[in-house]
Amino acid sequence: VPFSKQAENLSHEALIRRASSLVTDSANTYLSQTTLALVDALAQYAKAVHTLIALQKRYMNSIGKLTPAEEDAIWQVIIGARVEMNDKLDTCRHFESNWMNAINLSELAAEAAYNAGADQASVTARTNLNMAQTQVEEMKRLSSEAEKQLAEVKVEEIQRTAAQAAATRAFEKEDDVPEAYLRED
Amino acid sequence: VPFSKQAENLSHEALIRRASSLVTDSANTYLSQTTLALVDALAQYAKAVHTLIALQKRYMNSIGKLTPAEEDAIWQVIIGARVEMNDKLDTCRHFESNWMNAINLSELAAEAAYNAGADQASVTARTNLNMAQTQVEEMKRLSSEAEKQLAEVKVEEIQRTAAQAAATRAFEKEDDVPEAYLRED
Repeated sequence: VPFSKQAENLSHEALIRRASSLVTDSANTYLSQTTLALVDALAQYAKAVHTLIALQKRYMNSIGKLTPAEEDAIWQVIIGARVEMNDKLDTCRHFESNWMNAINLSELAAEAAYNAGADQASVTARTNLNMAQTQVEEMKRLSSEAEKQLAEVKVEEIQRTAAQAAATRAFEKEDDVPEAYLRED
Repeated sequence: VPFSKQAENLSHEALIRRASSLVTDSANTYLSQTTLALVDALAQYAKAVHTLIALQKRYMNSIGKLTPAEEDAIWQVIIGARVEMNDKLDTCRHFESNWMNAINLSELAAEAAYNAGADQASVTARTNLNMAQTQVEEMKRLSSEAEKQLAEVKVEEIQRTAAQAAATRAFEKEDDVPEAYLRED
């Protein structure tokens, strides 16, 4: 019986090795799909941030030159763009949770494949993991940069609005002075 | 553009859902293969333990009735059976590590499928997980029972060997008494 028993062990080993390769294959597919979705969502989010930046800049450059109705109209557009940006961010978060699942699954599948002796499958899974992480990191870097620019624009807007308010107060004060003189007269 | 954008999101969702189903499918296959291997290894281990129990009992019942050569021969067989049993235990440990990988992978895949909206795939994965755990627990219970019986047989063997040694000492003492008398004479 020892020969047939050894053959049976080999068979279990071979079936486990093959099955663990199938797991790394499907984990790779799942990781690719979630990476594509997340990278796409991050790109759309970055685009929405840049749209908002452009609108804020346009508004900033026209501070003090608009009628209240024109100012209202531009704010409606800005609010719309902000809602759009937040929606895109929600989509990013949604796909990021899928992507994290895929990363964890791929890591576990690579480990299991290694333990089952499916070395090539394990190496392929690790290569895909690195590629997915690099792609997502690069796209996250681009969207953080956009976020930083947006924050800078907001700071500038606050400064300009404050300067405009100060100018308005100064203008009104100048106007007041004669009145005060008039009253004293 | 909102319609085409929605369609694109749906498509990502659908692809992720489908890919996560593929992961649960392959995780199920991997879990089945490792469960079969582990259950088989545990059965072979339990069988080896029972073989050793039978040999130990046969030796025990012949304590004091064997020539040194016969005792040697039976011990060679017992040692061989013990080596075989330990080999089977190593095989169990090897397949148990694959099986634990498969359990962890299936749990993660079920969770990922649930998060990706692949509810049916998630439910199937959980059902398979429960089945695999039940099968392995049942087989582990059988092999622990065999281990317990072996431990009992060993205790009994120690007691019988001690009793035999005591009987031999008593027999030798009885023999000694006349000699002592002889020397005193």
